[in-house]
Amino acid sequence: MERPSREVIQENRDYTLFSWSVQSTSNPIHMTRAQGVWFWDGDGNKWLDLNAQLINMNVGHQHPKVLEAIKKQVDELCFAGPNFATEPRGRLGKKLAEVTGLAKSFFTLGGAEANENAMKIARLYTGRDKIITRYRSYHGATMGAMTASGDPRRWPVEPGIPGIVRVFDPYCYRCPFGKTVDSCGRECVSHIEEVIQLEGPHTIAAIMVEGITGSNGVLVPPDDYYPRLRALCDKYGILLITDEVMSGFGRTGKWLSTQHYGIKPDIVTCAKGLTSGYMPLGAVIVSAPIAEYFEKNMLWGGLTYSGHPVSCAAALANLEVYEEEQIFENTEIQGRYLAERLEAMRKYACVGDVRYKGLFSVIELVRNKATKEPLAPYNGTSPEMQRLAAYLKSKHIYVMTRFHMLWVCPPLVINREELKYGLDVIEEALAQVDQMLGMARAVAD
Amino acid sequence: MERPSREVIQENRDYTLFSWSVQSTSNPIHMTRAQGVWFWDGDGNKWLDLNAQLINMNVGHQHPKVLEAIKKQVDELCFAGPNFATEPRGRLGKKLAEVTGLAKSFFTLGGAEANENAMKIARLYTGRDKIITRYRSYHGATMGAMTASGDPRRWPVEPGIPGIVRVFDPYCYRCPFGKTVDSCGRECVSHIEEVIQLEGPHTIAAIMVEGITGSNGVLVPPDDYYPRLRALCDKYGILLITDEVMSGFGRTGKWLSTQHYGIKPDIVTCAKGLTSGYMPLGAVIVSAPIAEYFEKNMLWGGLTYSGHPVSCAAALANLEVYEEEQIFENTEIQGRYLAERLEAMRKYACVGDVRYKGLFSVIELVRNKATKEPLAPYNGTSPEMQRLAAYLKSKHIYVMTRFHMLWVCPPLVINREELKYGLDVIEEALAQVDQMLGMARAVAD
Ligand SMILES: Cc1ncc(COP(=O)(O)O)c(C=O)c1O
Ligand SMILES: Cc1ncc(COP(=O)(O)O)c(C=O)c1O
Repeated sequence: MERPSREVIQENRDYTLFSWSVQSTSNPIHMTRAQGVWFWDGDGNKWLDLNAQLINMNVGHQHPKVLEAIKKQVDELCFAGPNFATEPRGRLGKKLAEVTGLAKSFFTLGGAEANENAMKIARLYTGRDKIITRYRSYHGATMGAMTASGDPRRWPVEPGIPGIVRVFDPYCYRCPFGKTVDSCGRECVSHIEEVIQLEGPHTIAAIMVEGITGSNGVLVPPDDYYPRLRALCDKYGILLITDEVMSGFGRTGKWLSTQHYGIKPDIVTCAKGLTSGYMPLGAVIVSAPIAEYFEKNMLWGGLTYSGHPVSCAAALANLEVYEEEQIFENTEIQGRYLAERLEAMRKYACVGDVRYKGLFSVIELVRNKATKEPLAPYNGTSPEMQRLAAYLKSKHIYVMTRFHMLWVCPPLVINREELKYGLDVIEEALAQVDQMLGMARAVAD
Repeated sequence: MERPSREVIQENRDYTLFSWSVQSTSNPIHMTRAQGVWFWDGDGNKWLDLNAQLINMNVGHQHPKVLEAIKKQVDELCFAGPNFATEPRGRLGKKLAEVTGLAKSFFTLGGAEANENAMKIARLYTGRDKIITRYRSYHGATMGAMTASGDPRRWPVEPGIPGIVRVFDPYCYRCPFGKTVDSCGRECVSHIEEVIQLEGPHTIAAIMVEGITGSNGVLVPPDDYYPRLRALCDKYGILLITDEVMSGFGRTGKWLSTQHYGIKPDIVTCAKGLTSGYMPLGAVIVSAPIAEYFEKNMLWGGLTYSGHPVSCAAALANLEVYEEEQIFENTEIQGRYLAERLEAMRKYACVGDVRYKGLFSVIELVRNKATKEPLAPYNGTSPEMQRLAAYLKSKHIYVMTRFHMLWVCPPLVINREELKYGLDVIEEALAQVDQMLGMARAVAD
């Protein structure tokens, strides 16, 4: 079965379609094995996975405990329909209630479906239709979740579903309200109240936001953002849904990113770090009053694989690893080192901003520090961004770049040496971009 | 870990939400183990699974070959992101091209997401917006798939997405055009041409239909339905999408139900029988021209777990079981016996119609054979239907009942003796319904 990689890659390209790609330009790496923060390609290259795949492999690749739990459940009972009670399903529900402080979980397969069901539940529970979401956000690619997203990935499927109202983000580096740290009046929250007034508070079911915005740039909000948003929701009887698909389950060093800010949402959605990707699983976790409502009212939602026993067993083992191996503590410790290193990178001409929380971080690249002109246009790329990505690839550092940003989101089990190694290479890449910018300026002068 | 079932069920109810249910009335069975066509509950009762869970466990419970393949892949490489090439992903893509005669697969997690992506692909490829679907259909519960469905499960989330146009079904027993076998002019197809004309052919991207309608009543179409529908699509340059989530992968004795009718769709969606539910997986399989289009154009779709290696490995093993164990041949053989038995059940006063193809079948129950008054109203239930369901449950026969219908869709590995056993109990239940109807008539007289 050890076929040449060229053959495996060709077969993958000939017979399968790749996500978000022009297929002829997709250039997949053949992954042959993986361990911890590393994976290997078919040419024997060892890659440092600084993106935890799609920011989901929180416990790293091939963790023995999770693998064992999967295999055990497969042997015991590999599948039961969504209306059966099973041992792992019940235990996982209980565990999720414990760690989130919420009441009941509805299980889906991925993040998109979790958000679809969260919106549905909010509409059924409140009897209202509209959902407020933010522009710089991604909630998944099915129609409801995609429309809720503000990301350009929604453009090709618009108009999408009715009832989505979008507001601005707590994006302090490029404040949509033209404010600075000194002049800020938390317009990122107050303008939402204006929108609520103008839309009609009684028409709005929920505000749905990413715990911390991920694939649109790790937009860490001011510390009082969430308390203010929570207060706004309470004032108008609007539900607060936080999408913790990317920011939850240890990524920022806590179960939920909002736990940093001392508030509790009404509904939390999660996926990715829930199982670290070992098995597909998403969840919608609802508060006690919402759970109570569905005691007497129909939950109009379902899917064949809701509560899949193997997915639930994988999640349980994964959550145990978080606790047994003190993964969140490691996230905090390595996160501090990451923060220091990122702050030091501000010395590069091309680094406009760095943002981080735990091991969730991004470097925002600019052509010009003063004007903040992005190194690539919104929804586009540039020779400099391509050089950056190509350099990291050539050094077998696996990262995500998008528009004018570079993410650093390793598995949460990474140690200091591994992290240092990756960050050193990133600095080499930044230096190259600076050189390109310098040459461009020299030509312009 | 052997906890009392009462405790497990309570935990499941306390901490998890059940699909399509008023939670206080959900009455889950605790499944403790399963094998082939049987499963066991926590009280030691042995159940005959005549519904293959949700009409998905085609190779039956705990098939050793599929379990082994999963465990092997888990040990080798449990996860790789959607833009990686992996051995099982490529092999599965190739296999699906082989058995469907189509070109490339895009992998999702379940049926809903497969249909979401099929519609998206059709819109991108044609540059047109509208999708024609049928009233008696279910395509999944995410917003796009739910709106595409004609099933009452869509009512609570309407209006849903724009651009869905619904047409009638080939429901010969209750022909929406008032025709009989003798007067039929295939209005179930010709009226679609009228709709196409009135909607504007150039605005219609695709016609999306279940291969054979499943959860709305196993509506087996006349033999020339598909050739006519295919011709209609070709005439107007409209894509034909068949949702084979339930009807595909052996359920009717072929890979795709449309293979009975000698036509090829442009896009096929599948899930359920693709892995028999051992792992979550769905797929959108597209024709060569569509695959070619995305060589140069962006595929605006994706999900974290697209091409999950373990799901692909499970599917490969499952498809091998179909071939190695001649499962489709068994489906045909047992299907013939099932057909005979169902036809014989027409003797019961309450049996209005029986429909079947392979091991995909339904019994449609009526209050009155002459008027065809259903035994329960559309989207409702009745004391008689409840009695029917309760009797089967008391005998530990696991089936699906909905509205005024009873499905008989066992795992495709069922043998004659097992099938006979189940059908005998179903006959007992039908006799009880007849008795109830007889008593009601006696009272009325
Ligand atoms: C914040 C957020 N929500 C939802 C999703 C969608 O999850 P999935 O890809 O599992 O559908 C993602 C995926 O990247 C995400 O980052
Ligand atoms: C024909 C059909 N399509 C789609 C679906 C949705 O699949 P899933 O439940 O995996 O989302 C179903 C589920 O029953 C189905 O029967």
